[in-house]
Amino acid sequence: FVVVVHLFCLSSGKAIYRNDVSQSAFQEIKEEIASYGDVAKAIINHAVYGKAQNRSYERLALLVYAVGPRLSGSKNLEKAIQIMYQNLREDGLENVHLEPVKIPHWERGEESAVMLEPRIQKMAILGLGSSIGTPPEGITAEVLVVTSFDELQRRAPEARGKIVVYNQPYVNYSSTVLYRVRGAVEAARLGAVASLIRSVTPFSIYSPHTGIQEYQDGVPKIPTACITVEDAEMMSGMASYGARIIIQLKMGAKSYPDADSFNTVAEIIGSKYPEQVVLVSGHLDSWDVGQGAMDDGGGAFISWEALSLIKDLGLRPKRTLRLVLWTGEEQGGVGAFQYYQLHKANISNYSLVMESDSGTFLPSGLQFTGSDKARAIMEEVMRLLQPINITQVFRNGEGTDINYWIQDGVPGASLLDDLYKYFSFHHSHGDTMTVMDPKEMNVAAALWAVVSYVVADMEEMLPRS
Amino acid sequence: FVVVVHLFCLSSGKAIYRNDVSQSAFQEIKEEIASYGDVAKAIINHAVYGKAQNRSYERLALLVYAVGPRLSGSKNLEKAIQIMYQNLREDGLENVHLEPVKIPHWERGEESAVMLEPRIQKMAILGLGSSIGTPPEGITAEVLVVTSFDELQRRAPEARGKIVVYNQPYVNYSSTVLYRVRGAVEAARLGAVASLIRSVTPFSIYSPHTGIQEYQDGVPKIPTACITVEDAEMMSGMASYGARIIIQLKMGAKSYPDADSFNTVAEIIGSKYPEQVVLVSGHLDSWDVGQGAMDDGGGAFISWEALSLIKDLGLRPKRTLRLVLWTGEEQGGVGAFQYYQLHKANISNYSLVMESDSGTFLPSGLQFTGSDKARAIMEEVMRLLQPINITQVFRNGEGTDINYWIQDGVPGASLLDDLYKYFSFHHSHGDTMTVMDPKEMNVAAALWAVVSYVVADMEEMLPRS
Repeated sequence: FVVVVHLFCLSSGKAIYRNDVSQSAFQEIKEEIASYGDVAKAIINHAVYGKAQNRSYERLALLVYAVGPRLSGSKNLEKAIQIMYQNLREDGLENVHLEPVKIPHWERGEESAVMLEPRIQKMAILGLGSSIGTPPEGITAEVLVVTSFDELQRRAPEARGKIVVYNQPYVNYSSTVLYRVRGAVEAARLGAVASLIRSVTPFSIYSPHTGIQEYQDGVPKIPTACITVEDAEMMSGMASYGARIIIQLKMGAKSYPDADSFNTVAEIIGSKYPEQVVLVSGHLDSWDVGQGAMDDGGGAFISWEALSLIKDLGLRPKRTLRLVLWTGEEQGGVGAFQYYQLHKANISNYSLVMESDSGTFLPSGLQFTGSDKARAIMEEVMRLLQPINITQVFRNGEGTDINYWIQDGVPGASLLDDLYKYFSFHHSHGDTMTVMDPKEMNVAAALWAVVSYVVADMEEMLPRS
Repeated sequence: FVVVVHLFCLSSGKAIYRNDVSQSAFQEIKEEIASYGDVAKAIINHAVYGKAQNRSYERLALLVYAVGPRLSGSKNLEKAIQIMYQNLREDGLENVHLEPVKIPHWERGEESAVMLEPRIQKMAILGLGSSIGTPPEGITAEVLVVTSFDELQRRAPEARGKIVVYNQPYVNYSSTVLYRVRGAVEAARLGAVASLIRSVTPFSIYSPHTGIQEYQDGVPKIPTACITVEDAEMMSGMASYGARIIIQLKMGAKSYPDADSFNTVAEIIGSKYPEQVVLVSGHLDSWDVGQGAMDDGGGAFISWEALSLIKDLGLRPKRTLRLVLWTGEEQGGVGAFQYYQLHKANISNYSLVMESDSGTFLPSGLQFTGSDKARAIMEEVMRLLQPINITQVFRNGEGTDINYWIQDGVPGASLLDDLYKYFSFHHSHGDTMTVMDPKEMNVAAALWAVVSYVVADMEEMLPRS
């Protein structure tokens, strides 16, 4: 349904614009932004209290219950893309199309790990994306437990022929994930035969977490998987008591030729500057465990919801609002890189790139990367979210799929929410609809829609550095 | 080592004793209890800040890393009992002995569940204790999802030939656990061929939880297991969208003849009333997943620690402090029932029965069941814990293994701590040393030691109703 919104609310406030722009110029921008107060309220009301409430959650549940997880290269992913293509067309969005991308195709196959000494215990593992498998009979070897790359270097002579177990503490995702990404290479350099990495998470109920890892040219490829925090700590404890630990690791992991996939695109075409773009996005692919509901079903579906909300309200911004549902994000932003290659000639027309890929729980605010001028504008835009009391603008707007643009100077935005919760479920069997909350998604979608609409409709593009 | 404690601190306070006892009589008891102030401080200092700190954690880690989980009827459990027998003797405790018990012997064998329709998905399950298995080819049947026993009754005609899936919400353990215990029987009455029960937990990262279930005479036995909260919610959602769900369930579960086991007993024999008893306890058996570190390694080891602390300080209470490490608790308090049968003739000499079986995280206080008179005394005793700021006495002191005595009027005490955390890990693969905290165990052990020592050393036994 369509709601006609009357714009009459003009308010003014204290100028906070930076010193290289005149106070009066910024005052005009502030007033322009404040004039969106009623639009923002209409979007919020529609998303949070009105007929659209819980829609993004329900749409997501329908997809993930039907399809399940959507690994790069899998039939599930391509089925999801086709469903989304139909969904976006049926939703009445414009220029709905698929942009072909070649993406990696890796499958974990059957995998298992059993501790044979000092006692027999099956261990939960998740092989890491791009890992090779073991021979069919597995790899049986003694374990060297280390808590850091530094300790591995100090104990380098002990690594040869061993399975290196990393029991690194969780500090934060971006630093600790290096063990998952580089653990195999660093162990292989020293002659290790496999590596098992403590899952990169702040919290565990014996839950292994997968993710991508990277081999390096000139370094032997060894099989690598994540184990649980519990088993990493147990083996660390056993080793400290002098126990000799032996593990049998079997992994059927295999890489196949690149697969055909697509970025899924839909638009609300701009009324005045259709060639100019505000991009809102999430990725449709996921890991092959759980349902990919949180990472990044939520981000993809609040991005779709943003366009749906704006369309429902009969709004059409001056510049084009483009929804992109990325493919191959988990394999290193493969779909996004191809999109960037294809579209970067138009980079001067990108006002803002947005990606939600850190959860769609109750947002604490917007993360933003851009010039001080642009940040001051975003702070004014976020004041429009006062009705839901989420107005903060943080630093470090980012996303695997939008970083290509941000690195080239395009302002970028993402959502900040409860990262402890996010990384507790991230890339695990626990990434399901159970962790999603329809009311939280309503709020995240309202924020996402207000920000993307207002930036797309303002007379000027966001200023760059 | 031994510390000689001088008792000189006598303090007085406001009388709070109930009206059926004279103020002056209670004043004397208060003064008697207050005279233990320095003993309590010595115990606390030794446990929390002194040479004993982290000992119960380290002792527990040594056992569970060496043995692993300790299912009733398993070799692991009997190995653990023999190790503990040696440990208690080497610790210098008195009257260390084993009391034979016949306990159930059930094994889960290999088990799996696969959703075949509406799409293929492996599901994590944990068969429930005492469940029968399926035929080797498994049971393949359509699913009926219900959220309560009431809904099952309303939809009774739909249950025949189906696998009943219970997606009951978690309210609290004691009420929600009825679905695990009775789910199979209620489904079987209506002709269901198996039942799958949402794990009884307030929080999940795709973590199944096991536990005991009970068949009833005259009702067909059907295989039964717990599934994850996530899969229960997913199937509930799928069913609400009209999907037909088919599951193939395979369970190798089997019951064997009862096995030989033992309650493990050690004492500090009373100096004045050796026939009188204060019992401190936890159970040594566990489920067959995780390490049984929390349930009930922690409770067993702070109970041992209580006697160790008292012995270290050269203390010997007037009546006997008896440590019992129960066997077969998870199968319904089998070891404790036998102990009760064997010792109940002496019930008039039991001053207090204590069991820690709800976690040894930072305690919020003591749970106590007993007469008002006894409660008033326990409130005074808990004032001695002021140095660690844990002085509250709550209602509902209980424990599977001590309830036989409490029901017969013996005062009973247990620890209250973070039950949300406890039931998040309870009976799951996540019950490991990772969830245990040495400093929290120090505090729990200090509390446990002070309460048991003071009650064992007071001139009078705790009054009963």
